[in-house]
Amino acid sequence: MVRVGIVGATGYGARELVRLITAHPEADVVVVTSESAAGKPLVEVHPAFGKLTTLTCEPFSVRMLAELCDVVFVAVPATKSMAFVSALRAAEVSVIDIGPDFRLKDPELFKQHYKTEHTAPGLLKEAVYGLPIANRMVLDTAALVAVPGCYPISIITPLKPLLDAPLANIPIVADSISGISGAGKSLSDSYHFPEMNENVRAYNLAAHRHTPEIEQELANKVMVQFNPHVGPYTRGILTTLTVRTAGEIPVDELYARYAEEPFVRVLGEGKLPEVKYVRGTNFCDIGWVMDKRTGNLIIVSAIDNLVGGTAGIAVQCMNLMFGHDETLGLQFGGMAP
Amino acid sequence: MVRVGIVGATGYGARELVRLITAHPEADVVVVTSESAAGKPLVEVHPAFGKLTTLTCEPFSVRMLAELCDVVFVAVPATKSMAFVSALRAAEVSVIDIGPDFRLKDPELFKQHYKTEHTAPGLLKEAVYGLPIANRMVLDTAALVAVPGCYPISIITPLKPLLDAPLANIPIVADSISGISGAGKSLSDSYHFPEMNENVRAYNLAAHRHTPEIEQELANKVMVQFNPHVGPYTRGILTTLTVRTAGEIPVDELYARYAEEPFVRVLGEGKLPEVKYVRGTNFCDIGWVMDKRTGNLIIVSAIDNLVGGTAGIAVQCMNLMFGHDETLGLQFGGMAP
Amino acid sequence: MVRVGIVGATGYGARELVRLITAHPEADVVVVTSESAAGKPLVEVHPAFGKLTTLTCEPFSVRMLAELCDVVFVAVPATKSMAFVSALRAAEVSVIDIGPDFRLKDPELFKQHYKTEHTAPGLLKEAVYGLPIANRMVLDTAALVAVPGCYPISIITPLKPLLDAPLANIPIVADSISGISGAGKSLSDSYHFPEMNENVRAYNLAAHRHTPEIEQELANKVMVQFNPHVGPYTRGILTTLTVRTAGEIPVDELYARYAEEPFVRVLGEGKLPEVKYVRGTNFCDIGWVMDKRTGNLIIVSAIDNLVGGTAGIAVQCMNLMFGHDETLGLQFGGMAP
Amino acid sequence: MVRVGIVGATGYGARELVRLITAHPEADVVVVTSESAAGKPLVEVHPAFGKLTTLTCEPFSVRMLAELCDVVFVAVPATKSMAFVSALRAAEVSVIDIGPDFRLKDPELFKQHYKTEHTAPGLLKEAVYGLPIANRMVLDTAALVAVPGCYPISIITPLKPLLDAPLANIPIVADSISGISGAGKSLSDSYHFPEMNENVRAYNLAAHRHTPEIEQELANKVMVQFNPHVGPYTRGILTTLTVRTAGEIPVDELYARYAEEPFVRVLGEGKLPEVKYVRGTNFCDIGWVMDKRTGNLIIVSAIDNLVGGTAGIAVQCMNLMFGHDETLGLQFGGMAP
Repeated sequence: MVRVGIVGATGYGARELVRLITAHPEADVVVVTSESAAGKPLVEVHPAFGKLTTLTCEPFSVRMLAELCDVVFVAVPATKSMAFVSALRAAEVSVIDIGPDFRLKDPELFKQHYKTEHTAPGLLKEAVYGLPIANRMVLDTAALVAVPGCYPISIITPLKPLLDAPLANIPIVADSISGISGAGKSLSDSYHFPEMNENVRAYNLAAHRHTPEIEQELANKVMVQFNPHVGPYTRGILTTLTVRTAGEIPVDELYARYAEEPFVRVLGEGKLPEVKYVRGTNFCDIGWVMDKRTGNLIIVSAIDNLVGGTAGIAVQCMNLMFGHDETLGLQFGGMAP
Repeated sequence: MVRVGIVGATGYGARELVRLITAHPEADVVVVTSESAAGKPLVEVHPAFGKLTTLTCEPFSVRMLAELCDVVFVAVPATKSMAFVSALRAAEVSVIDIGPDFRLKDPELFKQHYKTEHTAPGLLKEAVYGLPIANRMVLDTAALVAVPGCYPISIITPLKPLLDAPLANIPIVADSISGISGAGKSLSDSYHFPEMNENVRAYNLAAHRHTPEIEQELANKVMVQFNPHVGPYTRGILTTLTVRTAGEIPVDELYARYAEEPFVRVLGEGKLPEVKYVRGTNFCDIGWVMDKRTGNLIIVSAIDNLVGGTAGIAVQCMNLMFGHDETLGLQFGGMAP
Repeated sequence: MVRVGIVGATGYGARELVRLITAHPEADVVVVTSESAAGKPLVEVHPAFGKLTTLTCEPFSVRMLAELCDVVFVAVPATKSMAFVSALRAAEVSVIDIGPDFRLKDPELFKQHYKTEHTAPGLLKEAVYGLPIANRMVLDTAALVAVPGCYPISIITPLKPLLDAPLANIPIVADSISGISGAGKSLSDSYHFPEMNENVRAYNLAAHRHTPEIEQELANKVMVQFNPHVGPYTRGILTTLTVRTAGEIPVDELYARYAEEPFVRVLGEGKLPEVKYVRGTNFCDIGWVMDKRTGNLIIVSAIDNLVGGTAGIAVQCMNLMFGHDETLGLQFGGMAP
Repeated sequence: MVRVGIVGATGYGARELVRLITAHPEADVVVVTSESAAGKPLVEVHPAFGKLTTLTCEPFSVRMLAELCDVVFVAVPATKSMAFVSALRAAEVSVIDIGPDFRLKDPELFKQHYKTEHTAPGLLKEAVYGLPIANRMVLDTAALVAVPGCYPISIITPLKPLLDAPLANIPIVADSISGISGAGKSLSDSYHFPEMNENVRAYNLAAHRHTPEIEQELANKVMVQFNPHVGPYTRGILTTLTVRTAGEIPVDELYARYAEEPFVRVLGEGKLPEVKYVRGTNFCDIGWVMDKRTGNLIIVSAIDNLVGGTAGIAVQCMNLMFGHDETLGLQFGGMAP
């Protein structure tokens, strides 16, 4: 049984980790920490877990976590995990960070996009980008995993197999739309229910922090014009990629590599994914259409931002780290409707 | 491993059964039947289950089901399951019927409310009303289980412990609101997205078929004014009960009997349940307020109509029938957000 | 042309007043005041009014309002309008207050429910409760109008004609559900989009401030068990009334008095209103079912909480005060879908 | 007073026309026709208009329409309006067609995209594309107006001023998302509430009928990769355009031409429109960001598909045809929240 600790118990990422690990046959949450909720029963913070857990939120303590846990998930806001992760790694605790602090390999790029100096640049090399389709072979020995961003997963997964195909030398357009849970639990005027219900908007155009992460994981072979949007629903990302081709691309063939991937479902040409079919799951669904008139290949992908885009893929990484079947605790279909 | 068959594979009830049983550690779906989808891969009918099942929909066959299954869930519309259940019981197959055909003990009442003669009245005595809080002791030997209606579960669960308390002799008012999945998969003008979005309406006032079922299971000790509504969301029932008291009612004490119920969560006085905290789960949450000014006790309950109100409680019944821990495959928290 | 001032420009009530009066043929908004937004163009606060207004938010000034306006709408939170209204009335400005400060006639009752001393009890007698179906005859000479609460309008309108009918001497049950705009613009955990989407909950049971207002306007002839709920949508209140009868009630006949009411639509027995049909309008729709089995009369009403429940009825009052046709600027159908 | 007839009274387009014209100070709906609803009161078809209209649906009759109406709006499905329009034009009735039959100038292109022969090609030359920003000068003498498609309005309006700017010679990417009302009133599995709620999907990629219309109205100077999506809400289109530049584009300057347009609101660089601010209105809001890193100009536009995208712009055309101020009956702000 893997003994799991979670740092930062109150956010949506942690809530989802608790949900998944509670139902996981080979892992247990044994400690949760939170500064703001220290002393409160976890059930008070997340009433959804009544009768499922008796944990109480603790203040952060490296010693306690090192003693009680086989692995610690860090689930705190951007730029806040560096300190926790450093402390935990110094005590040789295995860490899975669901935030962005250890995703970018270049501390300069981090500083530019997160407006703060990286305080643990030495750990960047050690950190494994937690995308099993790319890094399965090294995740089993990883001691520090940086779980990818939700948008990047929906963009890298469909694009990675195409990198050696004949692509025109212009940016790929990635229009994504996310449910509001992606913006987290913090209150804001924009996400007050009456302000966001029945609304759609674009945001952070030309400036979203996930852009350098996406390009890094595509080996900087392509430039990506990432246009993020939010829509009036809770969960799920749909990404539509417009890829300008410079020759025929054997899409079917290139995606054949995903046949054995447990959580990538290639639907095929003319079959388009929908957010509902991945709701609550770890799947990334992919479909496409080749537009012969324009010479563009249009690819659509769908993930659940909180599971396949955060907590689910984090659990998959944990499974790999501990030598378990990577699908353990994640073998369920979309909650649709 | 319990080998499960499902008759009527295309509806929401069946879809949810497949979702739960796929993740159940001691049960497998081995056959699904559907007349309309016979020959189609189940994944084509329910794309949410891609990479999780390779089943194909079969035409109904008692022989096949009897041979391959330990238990068969019948998930067809009202008045349609009588025939399937009769045939299966004649072949001594254990059956869990998620429809209403075997809930009412009195075939006359059935005829009155369902506008059709009951064709298997002989089986009504055999059928066990599948509400574990009431019938746990007989579910382990049941051969035919009638899974309760979703509204009734949300009403009977909070009211049953109060039946011997001092209640005024007037109908209890049960105002319920359900998500639209409760109306099933059939298309109708009312539930076309733009017609139901941002809308709320009452329906079937003074005429809902669940009324006699509720009163039967409350031993006909109280009359219930059941006012059903639907709102612009997919899952979940919230029921608000206005109970006129005729003396002091020790609510806390009466609900103490639920302390050991795995799927009833008594939140306490002044703590009101919300649909989100039971989403996707088998829980029934209960809270209340005593209004001293009016002399009314107001009780609120929340369930997920497709899980705690249908497929989840059906799986709980299956667990009991097969001697498993009744919580098997159902130990997960609400998907909130 | 009626020259209108609005005090408290940033909330939903004011926003809706601006929307309605902008399209009103005989009224113009000439001043808006707001402490928090003073100096800002109104369009910056409410981008929906781009190209429709060039007003700038001003700090509150009795002198300016008295000079420029024929009538001032006060749209500030509960307990905050007393001071503004006193100042304006001292300068003999006509006032329409959309908040609750001048609704209750008894300052003791006000203190009990609003937890603060009433600072202008002398004005309570002068204030006319702005419900045209009840007070049309005095609204034309009113100098201070207290616009009713949204829930009370949905409850008083259907109940008022029944007060002399044979009713049992027990509380009428009023189960209401409102869209989230009713909770206003202030941020709260409960109404953060991912927390409220796909959710339903009851709140303030046995304790809602609208209860004494409802009973006062029903001449304290009946007691009302008011059970308020919120659901996952923006606008509209649906109220279901369970009225215990003590004899036959000629509902059709009693509602005949509404035939000439421009904004009450009596749909008839067995015809139930829906929120969507009143969306964005000043209408109150009413339908009912007599349940002979239980002896209860079930009445359902629907209004738009921001129009028929706030800004629309306020404009209707203004029309009456200024001798205009009361339907001016309010003659439009529901925005459905 | 303009006397208006509407052919095809039951759909969403007609419903919205009735809503707008009922509130229009210089126009009245005098006849509505519908084959399926002939003989029914319009209020029965659209309960939102109770107490606002006493019209009854009539069977279609050229003679009656010619006699009673100054202008007839035709609001029937694609390929169905050709016959109605021909008959009405033969009787010299002025027609505003809100469907697509008279938008494409080339009958071959029509045939290719609508899979049917155009039966009134002679009228294509006469038809004026009803986009005031482009054709205001000829709309005042038009006898047949083809109201633009909703997506095209959201794409042509922001792109038209850029046609002579330095654009790269590759397709402009137009990713649009629409509310479900855009799909009309016909039932389908995809738009059943529980199937579409909390869902997003792309559809008709590389094959949407609006593509040739968009390119025609952009003088075939650019190719457009139109990627349409639908999201879980009722009204509104948000379009994100990725425009590859081949030199500096003075966007501000080019959009200056819209300063006097009553229904185009240019928000400026870095200010992005949202669907909520145009809800229920005739406005098209536009904002943009220049991404220097990629060399792409990203433009976002928002309209209400049923008003600014259909019925509102149709009324604006009617105003122009009859020499009225074009803003008559359309001067209202967005219903937000």
